[in-house]
Formats: sequence, C-alpha cells, structure tokens
Amino acid sequence: MSTNRQFVLVRRPHGEPVPEDFSLVSKEIPQAPEGGIVVRNRYISLDPAQRGWMDDAESYMPPIPLGDAVRATTVGTVHESRNPDFVEGQWVMGLNAIEDYSVALPGGFTMPVDIDAVASPSNYLSALGAVGMTAYFGLLETGKPAEGDTLLVTGAAGAVGSLVGQIGKLQGCRVIGIAGGAEKCRRLIEDYGFDVAIDYRDKSVETLADEVRAAAPKGVNVQFENVGGPVMEAGILNLAHYARVVLCGLISEYNAPERVGMRNLWQVLATRSTIHGFIVADYAERFGEGGAQLAQWMADGSLRFDEDVQEGMENVYPAFMRLFSGKNTGKLVLKIA
Amino acid sequence: MSTNRQFVLVRRPHGEPVPEDFSLVSKEIPQAPEGGIVVRNRYISLDPAQRGWMDDAESYMPPIPLGDAVRATTVGTVHESRNPDFVEGQWVMGLNAIEDYSVALPGGFTMPVDIDAVASPSNYLSALGAVGMTAYFGLLETGKPAEGDTLLVTGAAGAVGSLVGQIGKLQGCRVIGIAGGAEKCRRLIEDYGFDVAIDYRDKSVETLADEVRAAAPKGVNVQFENVGGPVMEAGILNLAHYARVVLCGLISEYNAPERVGMRNLWQVLATRSTIHGFIVADYAERFGEGGAQLAQWMADGSLRFDEDVQEGMENVYPAFMRLFSGKNTGKLVLKIA
Repeated sequence: MSTNRQFVLVRRPHGEPVPEDFSLVSKEIPQAPEGGIVVRNRYISLDPAQRGWMDDAESYMPPIPLGDAVRATTVGTVHESRNPDFVEGQWVMGLNAIEDYSVALPGGFTMPVDIDAVASPSNYLSALGAVGMTAYFGLLETGKPAEGDTLLVTGAAGAVGSLVGQIGKLQGCRVIGIAGGAEKCRRLIEDYGFDVAIDYRDKSVETLADEVRAAAPKGVNVQFENVGGPVMEAGILNLAHYARVVLCGLISEYNAPERVGMRNLWQVLATRSTIHGFIVADYAERFGEGGAQLAQWMADGSLRFDEDVQEGMENVYPAFMRLFSGKNTGKLVLKIA
Repeated sequence: MSTNRQFVLVRRPHGEPVPEDFSLVSKEIPQAPEGGIVVRNRYISLDPAQRGWMDDAESYMPPIPLGDAVRATTVGTVHESRNPDFVEGQWVMGLNAIEDYSVALPGGFTMPVDIDAVASPSNYLSALGAVGMTAYFGLLETGKPAEGDTLLVTGAAGAVGSLVGQIGKLQGCRVIGIAGGAEKCRRLIEDYGFDVAIDYRDKSVETLADEVRAAAPKGVNVQFENVGGPVMEAGILNLAHYARVVLCGLISEYNAPERVGMRNLWQVLATRSTIHGFIVADYAERFGEGGAQLAQWMADGSLRFDEDVQEGMENVYPAFMRLFSGKNTGKLVLKIA
C-alpha cells in the first residue's frame, strides 16, 4: 500500500446514510510528527455511535468535520515512530479513523495491545474493547442487577446485547432478549443462553408489550436499552417498581429525521424507575478491571462472543450499513490489511 | 348538612374531563363501623394526580372505581368515632374522597392535625401536606442540588413548583422557572424570588430551548419536571453533564388521548443524565422531618406559599378544571364546610 485511502465524510447524512455522503480518496501516507507515530490500521471498528458523530449536533464528542475521514477505533501496527514508547511493527489500538494510515499524537488514546493473549487482534475492538466494557460497566454499575432480577435486553443479538445477556445470567438474572428475526432469536437461546427471546418484527408496541409481560410477569427490574422507539416502549410498559433503565444506545433513531423518543414517561414516574444515560468512557480508569474479568469469563467458557468481520476498504459503506439493516451477526469489524 | 353529597365518577374521561363524567349525588350520612370513624370533610385537595386515578390504567394507586366518589386528600373534623384514638370534633387529615362525610378505618392514612399551629387548616393540604413534601424530598433527595447549580423548574408557578424554586434558592442554586403567562412569570420573580422566568405560551420547542439556553449558559444541572411535553423537552435539550431530572408530574399529558413523551432521549444519553420517577409516598416515614423544616422556613419568612381556595361542593368541577387551564394561583383547595 503506497497511498493512504481515506473514507471521508463529504456531506452530513439526512436520515439513512447514502453512498454520496462519503468519498473514498487516496492521499499520501502521512509522516510522523515529532513525538508522534503513524499507525497502519488493520482492523476498524464499525459502530452505531459513528452515525451520531456524522450529525452536526452537540454530543459527547464533537461532530466529524466535513472533509475528514470518519472517526473510528482501530487496531493496527506502528508504521513509523518518533516516540520512544513505540517501536515499528508493534500492535496498538486507538481512536483513529477509517483510513489506511493514521497519525497518533502523544497524550492521545493510543495504547499497546498484546495480540498473543487473544484469538484475533480484532478482539480488542470487541469483547476486550469498548463493546465489552460497555456491556460490563453498563450492566453491573448502572443497571445494578440483583440475583433473581428480570433483565430485559433490547438489540439483544448485537455485540453489546449478547454480552449483556450473558453477564446477566452470570449474575443470576432471568434474561429476556428482544431481537429482529427468527434466526437472531434462535441464537439468543442456543448460543447465548437467554431464557426468552422475542422477535420484534412486524409487531405493534401493544403486542410486544404483551409478550414482554408474559415473559416477565413480575415486571422488568433492569432494562438494557440499545434500540429506542417502540421496542424500548414495550419494556417501559412493563417496568417493575424501582427499575433501572440503562440508556446505552438508540439505534432505531439514529437515521430517523424525526425522533420518536419515549411516550410512556408516566410509567417511569409511577414505578419510581430511573433512566441512566450511559457513556462507557466514564469508566476508562477501570477498563483494566473489566477486561480482566471478561477475559477470564471467556477463557473458562462462561462468555461467548461473535464477530462479524467484513473485508476490504472498498466495502466500508455496505459493511457500515449492516448495522442498521440488522444483518450483522456479532461485533462488526472491517479488516483492511 | 343532613345528607352526604358525593362527587361520583360515572364515566372515565377521554382526554379532558367533561361535566358528564361526574355526578353529584346525595346519600345518607354513613355510620362509623366498629373501630372506625366518620370524618366531616371541610377542605378537599384538588390535584393533578386525581386525573390519573380516573383512568383505567395501572399506576401507583388503583383506578377510582366507577360509581365511587373521586378519591382525595381532605382535612376535616371527626363527626362520629368508634375508635378510642379519636374524639368527636377533633381535626384530622386523611386520604378520603370528594364528599361531605367519609368513613375512615383503622390502619388507614387518617392522622390528627394541630390547627393551632397553622394559619389555616388547609395548610395541611398544601405546604405541610403532600405538596410541601413533594417539593422538599423531590428536590433535595432526588434532584440533589449543589450550591451553584442551575435548577430549572417547570410548572414553576404551581403549588409544587413555587416551593421547589424557593427551596432551590435556599440551597444556593440559580433558579429558572417556566410558567404560562406574564402574570405567573411576574409572580415567579417578585413573589418567589426566581432568577429568571420564561413564559412558555405560544412558543415552539426550539424557541423555548433557546430561552432556557440563554438563561442557563452552562446547562441545567437539576430539572424539576411537573409538566412534560414540549416544556420538558426545552429543558432536556439544555441538560448539563450528569444532570438529574426529577420526574414529578406530567400535567400536560394527563388529558391528552395520545402521549407525547420525550423525544430527546439522545440528550439524556449523551449528557449521562438520569431521570428519576418520583412519588412522595416513598418518603412517608420522613414527613415529620420535612414538615418541621418547611414550617421553620415559613415561620422565618424564607418560604412563601399561596393557596387558591375555591368554595362549595357544587363548584367541584369548575374548580378542578382550573388545574388544567392554568388558572389556579397556588395550591388548589376546595372548602366545602
């Protein structure tokens, strides 16, 4: 690779992103500045959060500037180093972009990773990366499940959801998952050990709420929310008293020009429940602790984790859109080298 | 009064209650059962929560059965006692109904009140009753305001809201109130000491949000929500990081056939804020503590509280509707004897 291909945001998407919102451009390979390094990106994380960063809206991170490559967490090797802490060829992860080569500066988010400790370097973008930390700290620290609680997970077959359900089972919860389609529901039960799987497709809020009620006759104590909209509402209508809703993601809304939100606020009030906005970065200082526990559970067979690895920089757009069509079967990763 | 007039729910309201949903009937004065008492109701509390109890929906209390008098907190005197703890003529408060005479059974919510300690017996339905306790525990225990925080109160000129704002000032907060109309906004500033008053009438969510932003440039740390809908959203769009939203009431929604809810869930997530469903009954064991503090603040002039006392059992319906038209100028109470 003698050039640096970049997947650039050229227009802010209105609703669902279309190919014309992006441009794949070739630039010169950058040179490391004093104290910095250049990373050869090899695995790129594709996440729903990136859709939010494409909007011109205040958020927990600034919008991606138009003309810049789309921001992404990546795993790769050090291509050039002008920093004594990094040597060429060493594996690292960091917050970079969808491009072949990224410049990383001192004091940024770049850190070494030990690829001999994992089945694939991509694991640092999934179970041992933000996805795993989100499931671990979001459920345990924010949802605070107790043994015997009923846990409802939406987007349950997704990267975060499938981990949340399994961690919930390890805490002694009854675990209900909502996912799209029979195949995903089969995986929830057979692969991830959920107690009940509910297919949301082609169902009204009322029907979905009835199915959640049948599965959770004493109510939902913890709702781990990845989806928003009617799927979320079906859970909210079944909250137990003093329930905790972990608001982790709202994938059904990211491409919607009009936000649906949550119409059943009264149930939150009447059940004295709480809704907690959750951003995994708040737990950054404890990632070591979370990673160690997740790695142990994976090693002893308590946790199963799937990756959906797509290949090739030329496939970024269709790969990214798998997140919104519900096609991905595990953490979505793009392998580019 | 030789008969017992009852304001009976005969049909569940669809949207805004109409006179035909109720019937004023006359019955015989009830007799006290073994161990119970009959209360001559004199002051009746009219509250937004009663509208919720008229619906056939699960809530923190069962729906009012059709054919029963509308449930209400009242203050009155003991008319007949077959309980050694109560003597005839004694003042009591309790959860009764909109009727001249109520039967109260042992183990219920009836308790003696000391009317010599207050300006009017109706105070036990307002500042020293559920309204005062809601403001006190809702703000201090759930909202957890810190000195220097910005507090946004919706329904700010209402019974709960006007107390919340004043208690917020006593905690060292900058206090912004949203209310309907110039006269209410004037009262917020002049009578209750709010720093900023915003009139929501005839304004879009965007305009309201801009006005909140101008008043709270560092964002809203605590939002005390009594209203719901667009007024709530204008605050949510301005939450600071780690803000607390006390979900105390949703008066804009109680008569709405379709719930609006909250469309800006993303802001809750991105700011890592929390929304807390609040029901004052959860603090029943601490009402003594709250009452003592509120009474002290009122005695030393730190807190001002207004009552809107309407008169006459024949005026229940128009009096109750003042809650929803925004006409009431303080805690709404009906004096019937």
